[in-house]
Amino acid sequence: MAMAIVTLTTDFGTRDGYAGAVKGVLLSLEPGIDIVDLSHEIPPGDVAAGAWCLRVAAPEFPAGAVHLAVVDPGVGSSRHAVILEAGAHLYLGPDNGLLSLVPDPLRAFAIDASRVVRDGRLAPTFHGRDLFAPAAARLASGEDPASLGTQIEPGDLVALPVDAGWSEQGGEAVGCVVHVDRFGNLVTSLPAALLARACAAGGSAGGRPVLGPVASYEGIAQGGAAFIEGSQGLVEISVRGASASSLLGLGVGSEVRLSLSQGEEA
Amino acid sequence: MAMAIVTLTTDFGTRDGYAGAVKGVLLSLEPGIDIVDLSHEIPPGDVAAGAWCLRVAAPEFPAGAVHLAVVDPGVGSSRHAVILEAGAHLYLGPDNGLLSLVPDPLRAFAIDASRVVRDGRLAPTFHGRDLFAPAAARLASGEDPASLGTQIEPGDLVALPVDAGWSEQGGEAVGCVVHVDRFGNLVTSLPAALLARACAAGGSAGGRPVLGPVASYEGIAQGGAAFIEGSQGLVEISVRGASASSLLGLGVGSEVRLSLSQGEEA
Amino acid sequence: MAMAIVTLTTDFGTRDGYAGAVKGVLLSLEPGIDIVDLSHEIPPGDVAAGAWCLRVAAPEFPAGAVHLAVVDPGVGSSRHAVILEAGAHLYLGPDNGLLSLVPDPLRAFAIDASRVVRDGRLAPTFHGRDLFAPAAARLASGEDPASLGTQIEPGDLVALPVDAGWSEQGGEAVGCVVHVDRFGNLVTSLPAALLARACAAGGSAGGRPVLGPVASYEGIAQGGAAFIEGSQGLVEISVRGASASSLLGLGVGSEVRLSLSQGEEA
Repeated sequence: MAMAIVTLTTDFGTRDGYAGAVKGVLLSLEPGIDIVDLSHEIPPGDVAAGAWCLRVAAPEFPAGAVHLAVVDPGVGSSRHAVILEAGAHLYLGPDNGLLSLVPDPLRAFAIDASRVVRDGRLAPTFHGRDLFAPAAARLASGEDPASLGTQIEPGDLVALPVDAGWSEQGGEAVGCVVHVDRFGNLVTSLPAALLARACAAGGSAGGRPVLGPVASYEGIAQGGAAFIEGSQGLVEISVRGASASSLLGLGVGSEVRLSLSQGEEA
Repeated sequence: MAMAIVTLTTDFGTRDGYAGAVKGVLLSLEPGIDIVDLSHEIPPGDVAAGAWCLRVAAPEFPAGAVHLAVVDPGVGSSRHAVILEAGAHLYLGPDNGLLSLVPDPLRAFAIDASRVVRDGRLAPTFHGRDLFAPAAARLASGEDPASLGTQIEPGDLVALPVDAGWSEQGGEAVGCVVHVDRFGNLVTSLPAALLARACAAGGSAGGRPVLGPVASYEGIAQGGAAFIEGSQGLVEISVRGASASSLLGLGVGSEVRLSLSQGEEA
Repeated sequence: MAMAIVTLTTDFGTRDGYAGAVKGVLLSLEPGIDIVDLSHEIPPGDVAAGAWCLRVAAPEFPAGAVHLAVVDPGVGSSRHAVILEAGAHLYLGPDNGLLSLVPDPLRAFAIDASRVVRDGRLAPTFHGRDLFAPAAARLASGEDPASLGTQIEPGDLVALPVDAGWSEQGGEAVGCVVHVDRFGNLVTSLPAALLARACAAGGSAGGRPVLGPVASYEGIAQGGAAFIEGSQGLVEISVRGASASSLLGLGVGSEVRLSLSQGEEA
């Protein structure tokens, strides 16, 4: 039988032992668990980056997976610690936007610390170890989230301030950059389906020209940036063998414009 | 049944394949093992940082865990390779201070290379692969440490040169910074219990003022550094949303002074 | 019974969720799998570095291990995705040199995407998730590589452009630096067996003097660089407690000359 899976997404790094301590608590409480590192290299305090990592990786896991996420600059404050049931998965994290990109939210619970803390240990600076890990271990053992806290409305969870929408304006699809990856690819808020309607002329990002859509990185002219279908169902802007972010000098929030072919508008 | 756990703490990084080679040897010798990465990002040769990572993470693991630690600038020299039994755990590493913060040492053994090396392979630059990994695999299989080497006195193991003590001097608790974490928090040698006796006035670190104790990061005045109860049973100095180490210009070894309330002195 | 092992070697980093997505797909398709991270920190697009990591780590694993490697700047182009059977292991990766250092190649196959892609998902920028992970899961389940593609000649796989050879010229063994590790050690193309014939005088690297062979780092004179037997069966050049690469200003491709004792020439 497959083991229960608990994935970890944190901004802890590994060298201070914090990520290791969380693993130790999980394995102490639920020895048969399969711990899977998604990342401990979320930039410190960067809630949006943590939310993106979860969005990309977590839904790929099998039903029943428990996803523990801690990017928590407000640790120890009055922010809620929450469990979000979404699709066939369970997510745990601080209620600060970290879970706001999780698809298909169904039920949410505010964790009651008194029900999960062990031996009274709840350091005001390390809820990952003292609150979230014990709660995740119990969810991984099959316990119902309702037994760990109070049900709340998923719609009341904190949302990220980022505007990830897009609109059609005068023959252009207008959105923004929502993530810059390790390779410097600019992930935009534009749905990839728009590429079927895109002009060969391309468009722009932050006022800089972007070439028309290509089928693969190989098709991008040397020195240029082009639109391409990304892996997240969104349009991306890439450069061949280099960073589009560096070449164009753009980052999260930059405006992106994709020219649409007139004939194909619905 | 839960699998035997072997945790890894090294300064190998991952890109050179050294950490992967250690994992391969472990799984070749003891296929049912659960390998858990604590860190491979200890700064190269930084024994004190490796010892700290072990101190924070290893004791959280369930009884029977084997902790393999390799930060070993003296690899191939006459320094001992040792096994330390402590609490209900087993630790392996070079005798250079790396195991000196392990709590509750019980028995220690100098590993006899001839009893663990396989096929005569013992590269003078990679005892992690050729000596420590085979020894760890055998401990994980349940073998007694006494069968791998010669018993020595735990008290004879090399200690770190860091002075991690503290004292009370004229109404102040005086200690030092013992670790700076990824977030720039300054972990001090002062026991957290002292905070119950602290003055609201705070104290100082490296001669710079530090505000009185707060209950959580949220309570730290913008732009200031404050004392706070850390997760390791020690007083820490933190800044809200930024690095206390950078703001104060301090690091390991800096003197820390916490003013104590006179009325409550024992 | 031991679980099937799938190791991962990528240039994905972890923070973007790409490595996590690959793990999710693997566990969704083959729940009982043991996923082992070799590295996700291969420098972006650095095929030679990825090949080196595989060479160091992969052969240490037990028979039957599946090694999934993705450093793939040509993703989405016409480059083949391949399976290489070598020794008792299976390797998967793009045919761009990444598998060119794998020892003992036996059979190779060009993966037929139509046989492994699930639900038609094949993003032109993420074959790790959509092509390689599903293929690796099926190999881990025991499926024959021949069922996933077309057999090709192992000798036809793309080789790295690096010249990793060496020759004997006028009493010297002449090779080059093939890898620089995290510690700044210069791994050369010279077989370690040559050290038995080396002069005490040493030799040179990039025209800079290198001291004669030492038995361990401890034996290297302060401030100097020396030849030493490395862990990969090759001569290395190291400095004690510092980076030989930085001290000598050398990197991959630099010429290395080791003076041989005349008396012992065959």
